[in-house]
Amino acid sequence: MKPINKVAIIGTGVIGASWAAFYLSKGFQVSAFDPAVDAELNLKNRVQTYLLDLFELAEEQTTSSDHYVSDTLKNLTFYQNLADAVKDADFIQENGPERIDLKKDLYAQLTQNCPKDSIIASSSSGLKISDIQHDCLYPERIVLGHPFNPPHLLPLVEIIGGEKTQANYIHDAFEFYTFLGKKPILIQKEVKGHVANRLQSAIWREAFYLVSEGVCSAEDIDIAITNGPGLRWAIFGPYLNMQLANQHGFKAAMHHLGEPMSEWWADMHPYTLSEEKIEMLNEETQQFVKKLGDKNLQLLRDQALLRSLKMRKELDLP
Amino acid sequence: MKPINKVAIIGTGVIGASWAAFYLSKGFQVSAFDPAVDAELNLKNRVQTYLLDLFELAEEQTTSSDHYVSDTLKNLTFYQNLADAVKDADFIQENGPERIDLKKDLYAQLTQNCPKDSIIASSSSGLKISDIQHDCLYPERIVLGHPFNPPHLLPLVEIIGGEKTQANYIHDAFEFYTFLGKKPILIQKEVKGHVANRLQSAIWREAFYLVSEGVCSAEDIDIAITNGPGLRWAIFGPYLNMQLANQHGFKAAMHHLGEPMSEWWADMHPYTLSEEKIEMLNEETQQFVKKLGDKNLQLLRDQALLRSLKMRKELDLP
Repeated sequence: MKPINKVAIIGTGVIGASWAAFYLSKGFQVSAFDPAVDAELNLKNRVQTYLLDLFELAEEQTTSSDHYVSDTLKNLTFYQNLADAVKDADFIQENGPERIDLKKDLYAQLTQNCPKDSIIASSSSGLKISDIQHDCLYPERIVLGHPFNPPHLLPLVEIIGGEKTQANYIHDAFEFYTFLGKKPILIQKEVKGHVANRLQSAIWREAFYLVSEGVCSAEDIDIAITNGPGLRWAIFGPYLNMQLANQHGFKAAMHHLGEPMSEWWADMHPYTLSEEKIEMLNEETQQFVKKLGDKNLQLLRDQALLRSLKMRKELDLP
Repeated sequence: MKPINKVAIIGTGVIGASWAAFYLSKGFQVSAFDPAVDAELNLKNRVQTYLLDLFELAEEQTTSSDHYVSDTLKNLTFYQNLADAVKDADFIQENGPERIDLKKDLYAQLTQNCPKDSIIASSSSGLKISDIQHDCLYPERIVLGHPFNPPHLLPLVEIIGGEKTQANYIHDAFEFYTFLGKKPILIQKEVKGHVANRLQSAIWREAFYLVSEGVCSAEDIDIAITNGPGLRWAIFGPYLNMQLANQHGFKAAMHHLGEPMSEWWADMHPYTLSEEKIEMLNEETQQFVKKLGDKNLQLLRDQALLRSLKMRKELDLP
């Protein structure tokens, strides 16, 4: 694997900016490009905010947060065109719009302008690398590097190659993310939504169904998760939790739970979104938000995330 | 609502013992009954362990943990028959086996021997109160009070009545649990698996499907949850997380995500458990467990749970 000194961030919206802050915090030179109006200004504002989170998360703070942010920002350069941003990048994290036509154009340009052996990792949450890489120069170094929002805080990165990707690049991407302290997983088959978004959308479907059917309110769903199984999911995933569900391990727990679980599955129904349903679910959500008064929910979530991440680190949770 | 001084715990397995510790920690006299061999000994051992958790969770510790446990245990009385255990109980938390025939027999006996206006709350995870209460004396005071394991730690309690339940008893149960610091939700329609287990089983289904299809390993699923969406689910549920998914609230996020989400739903398939599949999933789980070395996973989970609960309390999360 060639040494990685310079990382390029292509697409600097919320995800791209969060990635930029993450790579900057790891000491990399970061070059960035986004064609949007005000992209540079928005990027720098966002990166500043995210760097403060990362400063708080750091084990040792040898300087003030102000110094840390201004020093670190010196390693970020915004370019006015794509070619300049990627021309000497060793690793490219792409965060463009989720449309296959735009993505293909972007990758054609990208691959014509960057070094031929630079890894290109796409943050795409839904598209297949096989489709993205189809018409590219040197498609063998294009991989999925799908983060979870916000990427500067959440450790998960989903990795998989497309049909034309070479195994060594997948391996290198995995090693690189691991080295940076991320928790990558290696997906073996290209499926829609990869892994985490499929698991998440399974919850969404049932959460929307139950409220649409009048079984309970949106607030009830959220309380049920955060005061019930959700508390455990920040600690262990479904497999380890099942292993601990009784005194006798996974298999015994499945023998005990399998029958009711299968009944619940049989009672779960497909769900089709419509504008009317989105209206209703939104109404429910806004009622819940209103009940919480003037709390800054975003701030609260990020504070809690930082504390949860610290806990996971201190207890060395998998 | 009549004052509640004495709580009876019927069925003292893992769930019943955990409930017993919870009510004891709130200062109640607790009477208990379970027909199993060694039930009394097992109950007292379990309650001691659980009381230590609750001691650690308490805001102020005015005594030593040993004193706390031995003092609190004085309020627990195990009876050799059901009638004695419930005869003057103001609130009964029932945790019998999940079989409707056994449940019906138990409730016939229970309702013949306890005061006629005592609330009886069932911990049943799958049965309907309408079926349980069918042949009872004074069925109007029977409600679901379904906790999440372990009940002494997890705040969620799911409440609903059956066809014959009177609204005032449902209201009283809700108030009682709230007063004790639980987070009850009021379910509006009897559905299989109530709310939290349905949400949980939606995740299980997709988690089992993806591993069975060779998309990723059990370890990958767990990492994807605990380092991705699971981290957020200990903080906010799916509705508030969607509200915060972008800068413009729930509706805008749904408009952005609705299309890919619907595609992922369309790609999710029914899953049928078999002994062979359970074997395979178990094999995967044990490989993961082995990789974690000699960590005491149960202890680790409970430590992390206590810390997460403290965080939720300090940040006053909903």
